Amino acid sequence: MFESNVQIRVRYAETDQMGYVYYGNYGAYYEVARTEAFRQLGISYKVMEAEGVMMPVLEMRCKYIRPARYDDLLTVKLFLKTKPHGARIKFEYEVYNEEQTLLNVGETIMVFVDMKSGRPTAIPQYIHEKLDVYYTA
Amino acid sequence: MFESNVQIRVRYAETDQMGYVYYGNYGAYYEVARTEAFRQLGISYKVMEAEGVMMPVLEMRCKYIRPARYDDLLTVKLFLKTKPHGARIKFEYEVYNEEQTLLNVGETIMVFVDMKSGRPTAIPQYIHEKLDVYYTA
Amino acid sequence: MFESNVQIRVRYAETDQMGYVYYGNYGAYYEVARTEAFRQLGISYKVMEAEGVMMPVLEMRCKYIRPARYDDLLTVKLFLKTKPHGARIKFEYEVYNEEQTLLNVGETIMVFVDMKSGRPTAIPQYIHEKLDVYYTA
Amino acid sequence: MFESNVQIRVRYAETDQMGYVYYGNYGAYYEVARTEAFRQLGISYKVMEAEGVMMPVLEMRCKYIRPARYDDLLTVKLFLKTKPHGARIKFEYEVYNEEQTLLNVGETIMVFVDMKSGRPTAIPQYIHEKLDVYYTA
Repeated sequence: MFESNVQIRVRYAETDQMGYVYYGNYGAYYEVARTEAFRQLGISYKVMEAEGVMMPVLEMRCKYIRPARYDDLLTVKLFLKTKPHGARIKFEYEVYNEEQTLLNVGETIMVFVDMKSGRPTAIPQYIHEKLDVYYTA
Repeated sequence: MFESNVQIRVRYAETDQMGYVYYGNYGAYYEVARTEAFRQLGISYKVMEAEGVMMPVLEMRCKYIRPARYDDLLTVKLFLKTKPHGARIKFEYEVYNEEQTLLNVGETIMVFVDMKSGRPTAIPQYIHEKLDVYYTA
Repeated sequence: MFESNVQIRVRYAETDQMGYVYYGNYGAYYEVARTEAFRQLGISYKVMEAEGVMMPVLEMRCKYIRPARYDDLLTVKLFLKTKPHGARIKFEYEVYNEEQTLLNVGETIMVFVDMKSGRPTAIPQYIHEKLDVYYTA
Repeated sequence: MFESNVQIRVRYAETDQMGYVYYGNYGAYYEVARTEAFRQLGISYKVMEAEGVMMPVLEMRCKYIRPARYDDLLTVKLFLKTKPHGARIKFEYEVYNEEQTLLNVGETIMVFVDMKSGRPTAIPQYIHEKLDVYYTA
């Protein structure tokens, strides 16, 4: 299984008047985790997109377990629990605070899309190769 | 069943470099729909919170069917398909563009919380009364 | 002078833990005012951009006079105090709440840019024509 | 003079359909720089606020020199060019990309406010003491 971690410091901008991180902001946190997961794999999402493959989101699910607060140093763990195949990829996330309290879990299902045709496309071969090592029997 | 509609004009701020509404922004659209649904029921979420009852989100699910774009005039339909009871309430959403194309569906499960105790609390009686008429047999 | 008004309902997402609209969100409010000002002039900013002219921001100034709060129905007044010429245009803004209290004033200086060349370009002629009537002696 | 630096990786969420960081997001970047500047001084903005002193923004100015883009690793330099006194404090900012190109400059004027009274208050003494060393003759 591939797993990566990234730390995110909660910004004041991300709080709401409840004093919590606004529930709509976790999508952006998950995205930071995806970008850093790709970087850790030796892939640049930015370059992939510049080369004509983008990865829009098909589905998102979040569970809000405990609130995150301003200035919390969050750890977002990202998991690719099964090796992706075809055009879709499912990322799972866990968000922890500094006390290792689990605050939030989520998942997103993305699809690789050829930007010229606007159609789904298989996961690029070089991404497969980067992932292979994490799923050998 | 209770149903309400609200229109939201997509802001430039809400787009991303794909030229779509960023996937993380639908949570804020759903929230606008909830605030307006409450107003249509004759309830002010703002007043409810000022009186000590808040409604944090426990779960969110979204499906992204087609992209929304800058300056699209969206209609967000909100549904309370079953009459809420206990401390929880489930809102369902459908987002359409001006051509009545369904772009996004979602749901959020919220919990009423007594802000003093920090504990879940039954849906306030005055909200029950406002909702009753929509669920009579 | 050209002047337009638009109403914006403050979203929960836009508040911060002070209970105020986060100071960084006024830029998005000003942008809503610009889009609606263009529409009132019979111009679509969206179409202008699709035709290859964009209008990035060179400068922004804001003064925060009193806080805006969740669910406030704001009026953003936009002014073009002098007829634009050349490649630049200066928009001025005033933000009021429902009690007509002035909450915020701001200005942005934008530049018309030809998206192919990436260079500043004169304000499109059809915009000049729309504006002329507001500045006749 | 007090100076601090912080690095911010541009999120996809922060871009707009021009492919640039949306102009309204620099306020949040400046805020990250302030929080980290306080931390570098041995001050926690979070604790200060919990103790009853907040620091709302009175004015912001930004100049947009060149665009920031997705995945850029920005450095935000923060300067307190003159030692603050009274209730106000002026922060200046410079935002650079990895090639040390200056992308954006800005400033914010903040006021220390006693949250109980809602009135401006002198900069807390412990902040003065932390800053003294940077402004000795």
